[in-house]
Amino acid sequence: MPVTILSGVTSKFGELWDVSPRNLVKEVALAAADEAGFALDKIEAVFVGNMLSSSLGGQDHLGAFFSEELGLSVPAVKIEAACASGGMAAHLAYLAIKSGQYKNVLVVGVEKMTDHKPEAVAAALMGAGSEGEREAGATFPALYALIARAHMLKYGTTEAAMAEVSVKNHFHASLNSHAQFTNRITRQMVMESPVVASPLKILDCSPITDGAAALILSSKPLKKGIIISASQAATDSLGLAQRLDLTTLKAAVSASNKAYQEAGVKPEDIKVAEVHDCFSIAEIIAMEDLGFFPKGEAASAIEKGKTQLGNNRLVVNTSGGLKAAGHPVGATGVKQLVEVYQQLKGISGKKQVPGADLGLTHNIGGSGATAVIHILKK
Amino acid sequence: MPVTILSGVTSKFGELWDVSPRNLVKEVALAAADEAGFALDKIEAVFVGNMLSSSLGGQDHLGAFFSEELGLSVPAVKIEAACASGGMAAHLAYLAIKSGQYKNVLVVGVEKMTDHKPEAVAAALMGAGSEGEREAGATFPALYALIARAHMLKYGTTEAAMAEVSVKNHFHASLNSHAQFTNRITRQMVMESPVVASPLKILDCSPITDGAAALILSSKPLKKGIIISASQAATDSLGLAQRLDLTTLKAAVSASNKAYQEAGVKPEDIKVAEVHDCFSIAEIIAMEDLGFFPKGEAASAIEKGKTQLGNNRLVVNTSGGLKAAGHPVGATGVKQLVEVYQQLKGISGKKQVPGADLGLTHNIGGSGATAVIHILKK
Repeated sequence: MPVTILSGVTSKFGELWDVSPRNLVKEVALAAADEAGFALDKIEAVFVGNMLSSSLGGQDHLGAFFSEELGLSVPAVKIEAACASGGMAAHLAYLAIKSGQYKNVLVVGVEKMTDHKPEAVAAALMGAGSEGEREAGATFPALYALIARAHMLKYGTTEAAMAEVSVKNHFHASLNSHAQFTNRITRQMVMESPVVASPLKILDCSPITDGAAALILSSKPLKKGIIISASQAATDSLGLAQRLDLTTLKAAVSASNKAYQEAGVKPEDIKVAEVHDCFSIAEIIAMEDLGFFPKGEAASAIEKGKTQLGNNRLVVNTSGGLKAAGHPVGATGVKQLVEVYQQLKGISGKKQVPGADLGLTHNIGGSGATAVIHILKK
Repeated sequence: MPVTILSGVTSKFGELWDVSPRNLVKEVALAAADEAGFALDKIEAVFVGNMLSSSLGGQDHLGAFFSEELGLSVPAVKIEAACASGGMAAHLAYLAIKSGQYKNVLVVGVEKMTDHKPEAVAAALMGAGSEGEREAGATFPALYALIARAHMLKYGTTEAAMAEVSVKNHFHASLNSHAQFTNRITRQMVMESPVVASPLKILDCSPITDGAAALILSSKPLKKGIIISASQAATDSLGLAQRLDLTTLKAAVSASNKAYQEAGVKPEDIKVAEVHDCFSIAEIIAMEDLGFFPKGEAASAIEKGKTQLGNNRLVVNTSGGLKAAGHPVGATGVKQLVEVYQQLKGISGKKQVPGADLGLTHNIGGSGATAVIHILKK
């Protein structure tokens, strides 16, 4: 049974101090139902992707929490897989529809991060890491700095090439009114920005963000619908210390291979992709893990602008990615799906990729312990 | 496609100060694989039910956390729906198998509660409640005391009848070597135990518990297998203030009606049931919500011993229930399924219900905001 995406919307991403998670979820859920052409009471189950509400806010039971807000009494559940919570919520919603038990399912990703002290947010985010990493006081910038160093050593990847990931993604975000940052930046600005964990500068890092995104998935076939033609996930060790190679995320390779097989397509068929650029190095590795470029060649390809909007075979992170559109962690995986859905539907406005008919999303939890890959088809 | 339960095991429940969540999960997962007759590498996905690891321990990403421990690299995810996390994890695993994407799925429920200060545990548990209840300083004993008072006023339910729920469940637990409490108690002991939130005394309340439980679900048909013939969930308001009637849990009524319909059976066909007796009043209300007794008549039926092991049409909480077997919140829903599975398989030893061929589990999140019902058939 094909799973159709009936609608997809995101809230504005950014520092949203005047709205609560309730407000955000209500906004995107109502807009998604409206776009799908029905009232919310047609929804038969609710899947909420969220990571930090429990550790930062003490609020659990978000399935019921948001269902109450939406006036629903259908099955509702929170899905948590660190920064891949949104993608995993969509994966389970996809399976739920394929099972035949539910026809129309609401997937909501939401995170409210900017109300808390940065130290508290950094500590809570480390809940996605291994015990050893947590005890050692590691943070995600530090872990990805290790990954970046390994990639630089093995493939000669430069800090300048990494900087170009951020430059491209800020350019894309400048065309996205929902992005957290809509300012364009230059390579020099990235290179001269303050060092967070060498070689990563602050402009290599995705920000702390509030935001929500919603999708309605359905068993209803549509004449010109966008369908999910693959939904796959895989797992790797939580900690970097347990990995043989830091220059690749094994879970992303495994999940994407399964996804290409499920969809019956090849990496070169993909026209648009939203990938998990929590740090600039992560997008370079994603390009290689997903088979878009041979190992060691993605950095120079990105540097040459080969994944930027324009006359390219593949455009990556048209939303602005995590770097510039923002990274409300539980919402990110859902937002990626919304962006690709809108691209395939041809409603992406200034950031529209012409002829986009096949897209991919790549959502990562932790430093690569969870990977969720979706392939969407027009 | 029928979903078969290949195996089901629980750890010892109790104050397990010398083991970690890792140890507990490894123990039950390996034992479940062993009982299913294969190595863990046949598992294609892992569903973890847990509520408090994030708020009490700061550890998220439990899907990957436990997969690493088990040496698995398959899709893994944490499911949270407060004290119904375990039942909800089983529900989503059931849908995952019915979707055709996964053949053998491991469901693990786990909670480690006794390492933390009771005040911290009580506060973390309120993460399952509404914002209003949390802000007012309510606790779950207080909320269930309100429910008990409403039931007493409307139906004349007595404290003595409530006490008999605990007496029965301690009697059953005395036959369960994995139970937290194996001592038998008397009505007088309950009535004279310290008041927690009137009319609930401490022996009306389920304890704080460590423990884990595991199930392996499969699409593989077995000649004499135990199958899940219904898996349903529903949602109600988080807070009591939003409910018209405190003497029933609407979500449990709704989910069980759907489950009876899915399985094609009636309440009177059920021979064994594990229900969510977080407080003694909760079991009385469960008996009525599930259609086992007419409204207002369950208390006296329990008082007369009609749901106790012996010559009865229906036996409830043969494990000892949450009250006496213990309530490691994320594990409870999985443990209930394990207990009913073992009853239908006829391997329950001294607590075996003769002729048990149809069983039900009733797992509740919060004060009734989430209900998950499963029906198992021999």
